[in-house]
Amino acid sequence: MSSPVPLGFFAATARAGWRKGGDRRPEVAVFFAPGGARVAGRLTRHRFSASPVQATRERLGRGRARAVVVVSGYALAGVGEEGRRLTGEMCRVCAGELGVGEEEVLPAATGVIGLLPPEEPLLRAVAEAARRARAGERDFDSASRAITTTDTRPKVAAKELPGGRVILGLAKGAGMIHPSLATMLCFLFTDAGVSLPEMEKALGTAVERSFHGLSVDGDMSTNDTVLLLDSGKGSPGGKVDPFFSSALEEVCVFLARQLARDGEGATKLLEVEVEGAPSEEAAREMARRIVSSPLVKAAVWGADPNWGRILAALGTTSWPLREEELEIHLGDLCLARGGKGAPFDEEKARELLRGEEVFFRLRVGWGPGRARAFGCDLTPEYVKINGSYRS
Amino acid sequence: MSSPVPLGFFAATARAGWRKGGDRRPEVAVFFAPGGARVAGRLTRHRFSASPVQATRERLGRGRARAVVVVSGYALAGVGEEGRRLTGEMCRVCAGELGVGEEEVLPAATGVIGLLPPEEPLLRAVAEAARRARAGERDFDSASRAITTTDTRPKVAAKELPGGRVILGLAKGAGMIHPSLATMLCFLFTDAGVSLPEMEKALGTAVERSFHGLSVDGDMSTNDTVLLLDSGKGSPGGKVDPFFSSALEEVCVFLARQLARDGEGATKLLEVEVEGAPSEEAAREMARRIVSSPLVKAAVWGADPNWGRILAALGTTSWPLREEELEIHLGDLCLARGGKGAPFDEEKARELLRGEEVFFRLRVGWGPGRARAFGCDLTPEYVKINGSYRS
Repeated sequence: MSSPVPLGFFAATARAGWRKGGDRRPEVAVFFAPGGARVAGRLTRHRFSASPVQATRERLGRGRARAVVVVSGYALAGVGEEGRRLTGEMCRVCAGELGVGEEEVLPAATGVIGLLPPEEPLLRAVAEAARRARAGERDFDSASRAITTTDTRPKVAAKELPGGRVILGLAKGAGMIHPSLATMLCFLFTDAGVSLPEMEKALGTAVERSFHGLSVDGDMSTNDTVLLLDSGKGSPGGKVDPFFSSALEEVCVFLARQLARDGEGATKLLEVEVEGAPSEEAAREMARRIVSSPLVKAAVWGADPNWGRILAALGTTSWPLREEELEIHLGDLCLARGGKGAPFDEEKARELLRGEEVFFRLRVGWGPGRARAFGCDLTPEYVKINGSYRS
Repeated sequence: MSSPVPLGFFAATARAGWRKGGDRRPEVAVFFAPGGARVAGRLTRHRFSASPVQATRERLGRGRARAVVVVSGYALAGVGEEGRRLTGEMCRVCAGELGVGEEEVLPAATGVIGLLPPEEPLLRAVAEAARRARAGERDFDSASRAITTTDTRPKVAAKELPGGRVILGLAKGAGMIHPSLATMLCFLFTDAGVSLPEMEKALGTAVERSFHGLSVDGDMSTNDTVLLLDSGKGSPGGKVDPFFSSALEEVCVFLARQLARDGEGATKLLEVEVEGAPSEEAAREMARRIVSSPLVKAAVWGADPNWGRILAALGTTSWPLREEELEIHLGDLCLARGGKGAPFDEEKARELLRGEEVFFRLRVGWGPGRARAFGCDLTPEYVKINGSYRS
């Protein structure tokens, strides 16, 4: 992997064998922090959260962990008691191979709901990956591929902090109409030596400004998991880094844009920035509403500069808005101003919409709130992928 | 028209000429109640509601009206002051031809946002339709076609009440991912002679149990309009009909199912019934969440009995749910029970999913709440239609 890797972490993968056809991606990844790591996390609030999420939620309270085990292909959700048992087995085997306590292992999973993975291949792969991680493998590259499902490419971002410390993030997504109905997993590793309260705060802000910009309120998967682990190994002096928060946010935004761009069947990134809203929260809700609108997304796919659909999506939010104060820009082109269309070069607009990254900027008033949201176009391919996910 | 028509109403249409190609549908419809009618309505709460909606909202307060004028092809939204002026002109011309007050005319519109209709053809068509309505035309058939946009067929439902009285409903929809981002118009006419408070109450319940089952909370168009007009002409004795409410609900549900079935690009109706919820409202929210899930909709298109997606959509609601109490049925086939898959005949399930009407029934607990929601499958065709709506 060309990205820098933080000190104090190992990573290894193994094949369980259930990926089909010529797909040789491993299905299991294990991350190991032999000296332990402080950990903060954000987990789905889904009513039927997967059993790995339930276990991780419980263990996050400890604030420390030594390993993360990830399974790809099965959500371990909607499988009743048997799912909980299997999650327990997975952690037990992983902990045994690593020589750590079971409660120090954080499990995560992604894949189909309602089906159980075959037990023997699963546990064999977990054991193998754990053995290799313990032996000192640092194959974050393979791990970034192991955690993916319908993703067309792995998502990796890294940022170096002063003094050679590093934040490394791996993520998987896809299925971006309501992004998090497809599971979003993100594992962030650092050796920055940040305190737990600082980690919590930085992670909260970074997730809010990145992955939450991908999502519609209330839309989430059974398995969404974001974990931040800090080994502290890069910071022997224990000096706090004032740039940690902004670096973490940068890594998360970079990953969020990759997730959006690689939405199922997507051909382009759709980024919307709203400014002049009453608050950052309001701005984010508006931006999110727009990138989530299937009509906006389909128009972006068709390179149709139909700004009326943006206005239509925006007006469904509960925030007070005045038509007269509204401006809609596509790149540097003003499409509408004062609640009605502005004269613009239609051909140039279509040209901008044909690009790989489509950027709308809206002014909705004169408040201090500004935020971005990230999405993708809606394509016929999306429907085809999701019409036969299991087969 | 083969449907019975209530007494006291006339209907006529005219061509404005902006429909393209061989599309000969009229673009303007006028409904006329020479003796006046009591009126109740439900209008969009969209932040940028179209100027016809603004005018109708104001006039609904009077509780009486003599005409409805409908324009198809232009939303008259996102066109600033000029849109308000044109809406005013349209009502003025209509009122003039009918010999009624301008404030007795309720305008409605549907179509593209942000573009103005050409004024002269619009006003000419309004005048012509009004003249023909005044002359006694009762062409509800043509009116049902005039109000449609991307609908592939007109939506009409009628119900006879005892004593020969009638409720007749005309509706238009299409664009059903988030149904009401495409405008829903519904005009209900009756001669039942019901009091205004009874009309309000019956319409509220009927809309809640029909059109609201089509929609996701907060998703609405700039133009959504439902109007109920009662001429009272069929009820000279003034006797109240105890069956009016349930008949109105039946008409609205019938129209809602037609709207769902004719969603843009749709190949089938998707109906979901939730029972055992804490309340009817909770049941409706859950059912709606499921019929709105693009992943469920795509799976229905692909005839994939992937019940995990139903569980995933259901769990995003804020209502408390227990996995152990959950049952998911497809027609008479039980797909899941107690939060995990039940053994079912996969071929039979696919067979049911290949039908024109797909019906899921869920038990979510043991509460008294039961409700239905109506949607359609998500198809590659939908995306193609919406990638180039304006062109």
